[in-house]
Amino acid sequence: MGEDKSTYTDHVISLLVFNHPGVLSKITSLITRRGFNIDSIAAGPTKEKDMFRLTIMVKGDDRSIEQIQKQLYKIVDTFKIMTIHPARKVEREIGLIKVKAPMGERNEVLQMVNVFKGSILDSSTSGFVVEITGSSDKVDSFISLFPSNQIVEVARTGIVAMDRWEKQ
Amino acid sequence: MGEDKSTYTDHVISLLVFNHPGVLSKITSLITRRGFNIDSIAAGPTKEKDMFRLTIMVKGDDRSIEQIQKQLYKIVDTFKIMTIHPARKVEREIGLIKVKAPMGERNEVLQMVNVFKGSILDSSTSGFVVEITGSSDKVDSFISLFPSNQIVEVARTGIVAMDRWEKQ
Repeated sequence: MGEDKSTYTDHVISLLVFNHPGVLSKITSLITRRGFNIDSIAAGPTKEKDMFRLTIMVKGDDRSIEQIQKQLYKIVDTFKIMTIHPARKVEREIGLIKVKAPMGERNEVLQMVNVFKGSILDSSTSGFVVEITGSSDKVDSFISLFPSNQIVEVARTGIVAMDRWEKQ
Repeated sequence: MGEDKSTYTDHVISLLVFNHPGVLSKITSLITRRGFNIDSIAAGPTKEKDMFRLTIMVKGDDRSIEQIQKQLYKIVDTFKIMTIHPARKVEREIGLIKVKAPMGERNEVLQMVNVFKGSILDSSTSGFVVEITGSSDKVDSFISLFPSNQIVEVARTGIVAMDRWEKQ
């Protein structure tokens, strides 16, 4: 996390790491010490019981990203760094959005949820909790439909990404 | 991240933090230094441009979690700590699962994706990339349907959670 530099581009770093205490803070320290912005981070279990997979979105130039990847390998808990090819990746994120929808405005909100193929996770007389799944852009677009004071809360997972299958 | 202690229970810590360099590593260091296991972490943008929302799943006893929350407030970049009520929360996670599905086994895999209301994000003659959205348990269940050697890769966001609307 840090200031935005407009010449930088988005990169996805995907890591398999051993589930040891402190590994997450070692990795995030290394990246931020180098002056990179972490745009989002998602860390969850993987099929191996003792490992985690981290997906980190950072802004930076190509050369610096390569250097970071080399240094990440020096962290003993790093098992594997996966390169995600921008042209071949699938990426997904969830946004939970708590939006006000008093009587008279409910249909309009529900229509928008439909257009975005979202789901209603909770409904009260005051409003909804909406789930939007897709690219980060899609989640951004949904949120931007509403004036800021209509949005009560937003929680986003950050993206996870994976290469498509190699075509044969 | 760390060893499992079976007497501990899952807690969701949700934080609004200012988007300053190093804030993520300060927070993860604080939690892991105290000996807590981070089960998953999800960090993404929120409706305020200069803030991030972190959702952290940790295992620990209730008293220690309270202490951690107090200490998190001492990190200057922490703006707000939201208590997520276990009984009133909505939670969601995405798992991307790259699964082998050669000819002859494809229908079986597709049926499972249907049962779990998942989506096929990519398809090749070798297999699929499947998206499963729901609780962590649901993602776990889908993965456990397949023998380990049929699963090529798993990437999960970690959960995001939010309180439902107060009923009036």
